[in-house]
Amino acid sequence: MNWEALLAPYAQAVEELKVKLKGIRKQYEYESKHSPIEFITGRVKPVPSILEKAEVRHIPLDKIEELQDIAGVRVVCPFVDDIYAIVNMIRSREDLHIIDEKDYVSHKKKSGYRSFHIIIRYPVETIHGVKMVIAEIQIRTLAMNFWATNEHSLNYKYKGKIPENIQSRLQRAAEAAFKLDEEMSIIKNEVQEAKRLFHRK
Amino acid sequence: MNWEALLAPYAQAVEELKVKLKGIRKQYEYESKHSPIEFITGRVKPVPSILEKAEVRHIPLDKIEELQDIAGVRVVCPFVDDIYAIVNMIRSREDLHIIDEKDYVSHKKKSGYRSFHIIIRYPVETIHGVKMVIAEIQIRTLAMNFWATNEHSLNYKYKGKIPENIQSRLQRAAEAAFKLDEEMSIIKNEVQEAKRLFHRK
Amino acid sequence: MNWEALLAPYAQAVEELKVKLKGIRKQYEYESKHSPIEFITGRVKPVPSILEKAEVRHIPLDKIEELQDIAGVRVVCPFVDDIYAIVNMIRSREDLHIIDEKDYVSHKKKSGYRSFHIIIRYPVETIHGVKMVIAEIQIRTLAMNFWATNEHSLNYKYKGKIPENIQSRLQRAAEAAFKLDEEMSIIKNEVQEAKRLFHRK
Amino acid sequence: MNWEALLAPYAQAVEELKVKLKGIRKQYEYESKHSPIEFITGRVKPVPSILEKAEVRHIPLDKIEELQDIAGVRVVCPFVDDIYAIVNMIRSREDLHIIDEKDYVSHKKKSGYRSFHIIIRYPVETIHGVKMVIAEIQIRTLAMNFWATNEHSLNYKYKGKIPENIQSRLQRAAEAAFKLDEEMSIIKNEVQEAKRLFHRK
Repeated sequence: MNWEALLAPYAQAVEELKVKLKGIRKQYEYESKHSPIEFITGRVKPVPSILEKAEVRHIPLDKIEELQDIAGVRVVCPFVDDIYAIVNMIRSREDLHIIDEKDYVSHKKKSGYRSFHIIIRYPVETIHGVKMVIAEIQIRTLAMNFWATNEHSLNYKYKGKIPENIQSRLQRAAEAAFKLDEEMSIIKNEVQEAKRLFHRK
Repeated sequence: MNWEALLAPYAQAVEELKVKLKGIRKQYEYESKHSPIEFITGRVKPVPSILEKAEVRHIPLDKIEELQDIAGVRVVCPFVDDIYAIVNMIRSREDLHIIDEKDYVSHKKKSGYRSFHIIIRYPVETIHGVKMVIAEIQIRTLAMNFWATNEHSLNYKYKGKIPENIQSRLQRAAEAAFKLDEEMSIIKNEVQEAKRLFHRK
Repeated sequence: MNWEALLAPYAQAVEELKVKLKGIRKQYEYESKHSPIEFITGRVKPVPSILEKAEVRHIPLDKIEELQDIAGVRVVCPFVDDIYAIVNMIRSREDLHIIDEKDYVSHKKKSGYRSFHIIIRYPVETIHGVKMVIAEIQIRTLAMNFWATNEHSLNYKYKGKIPENIQSRLQRAAEAAFKLDEEMSIIKNEVQEAKRLFHRK
Repeated sequence: MNWEALLAPYAQAVEELKVKLKGIRKQYEYESKHSPIEFITGRVKPVPSILEKAEVRHIPLDKIEELQDIAGVRVVCPFVDDIYAIVNMIRSREDLHIIDEKDYVSHKKKSGYRSFHIIIRYPVETIHGVKMVIAEIQIRTLAMNFWATNEHSLNYKYKGKIPENIQSRLQRAAEAAFKLDEEMSIIKNEVQEAKRLFHRK
């Protein structure tokens, strides 16, 4: 199986979405506005993970496009409010179609995981014509991202079965991350209030 | 005038077109096919050049979008045939609209300049909504590119008035470049013929 | 004053140090070891900031190389322990000379700021021969980095005089960041203990 | 065999040399001088090619560092003279040691191949200490590069045994490339003469 050729449209979708979202961040900078985007990453799901997930879900290999996270882009924001600004920006774009949304920011997962997920359909021009690609955009704060990255590697190490005592530690770390976001959000508001007062003079 | 903000959509169009065309090259590689693309470059016209051209053409600064080469992308091909393969690929894309085409490959300019130019309209999502951007795609061989790059810097140095003796030298260099393309094209055909004979066995 | 030419060796030092430290991270990955590096950034101090700092410190413009942070590289680590692993790695390198070290990790600043700073001399080959460049390497965790980035923009906005109520909020955010680092460090130890037990079997 | 880990110091040498040579090009630009560097590429020899060459030369796999072209960097110049400017620049550097030089520019190979090769020893800092890496730097003009790239792929296709009629065609292409370089060199001299006259006024 020529995986490189098969995954090329997904890799292309990831590259294009990264360039497009990085462009949005630059425009905020050029207009001297607060950018709701701290940084952007993207990846194509590694082949072993695709195979594993396809098996678990009984998806035959000629239908792997049913997996919705082969192409993944992550937008990391400074503040919690910024997440919703990004969600609205994505909703208004004309170069993609939203299929599904999951708000794990307001409704965190039992593990402590928090992020906003948007599943999209995105057209990619290939050497064989246009192909519609499914991609997942994850939007989260820096603190959520830090926590999720660590949880992900623990999950990987324990093959999904994190021991209970470590799980409760992870919960406490999730609370610390949440606390950090809260404290930062309060400062954000004060800063913007201070700026409004300043400009009203 | 906030040029960075003003030119942001053009810079964005250049970045996106570069990523899209680089993706096309990778797809040829992944499928082990001859890639008609050797490399891709792009640039936004520098502000002094925009101002100069706007003045010469009596275009007011609030209408600089009438300049068709503010956003420029260049596709450099190994062989002359490849130029037309790229032209056809661009004609078939659904993410851009062709406004104009100029074939300076078949009909070279008096100076010796050869390239295929396509003017397109390309939609860019900005933080203020969709903006249609005009961009120019230049398609040429490596030898044409080498010659054109040198002619361009001579033109810059002589402010468009290259002395006659140097002009005639440039002509001879253009002929040498043309000769190199011809010799290479002949080899290309022989190679592909050899391969067809090989596969027919 | 040709700032681009003047700052070129600093920009070069930043580029080279980034490539070298990114190489270290990749080597950890290739050998399937925990990487003490999450990501690396670098920047040359913007000209207005150089001018301002030179004035405050009464440094004439022909001696700006006395400023030790014109070239700056930042190494961001997952865990607090990793900071000292990076410090030791830098101490052992033969391609740079350490001039000074400041441990604001063990001894945080009054503002709540935490980071490890190393000042180095680094040889850069220029078109006029070798030039010794002073550069600053900052090493910190993700949580420290998040906090410091926000404090920096507040400092910028308030021109160094952050109002007291916001300052006390920043303190609380610093504590939340510290707490997050602590919780994550505890998990790190548990994970590595679990792995040691596993391998001892 | 963990090839990624084994080849990491070679990949690192390539990355560092690329960044260093690109820095040289930028310095010429910043000082508004003619840059003898048009572009730089680099690559680590693919594993199958390493295995093949080691077998042909009876080199055991634990001594592959005897192969001198595992790490390869290519400097492509606008004009023939520029090749020797680059050679002198490399000879004067203190961050590498020259082991060998081969001047296939003045003394072209029978095939028509032209390039200047420098074999160097280059120190790379790894997570296990300093490692001396052998690398090859190839220096050639744009026209030489174009020809060599095409010859390389023909050699690959014909497994080193290019049919005679194609070989003689390649010879003619090499002559056309040589002619192009000559014509361009003549213009280069005229341009610089014109500039000297201009400044003498």
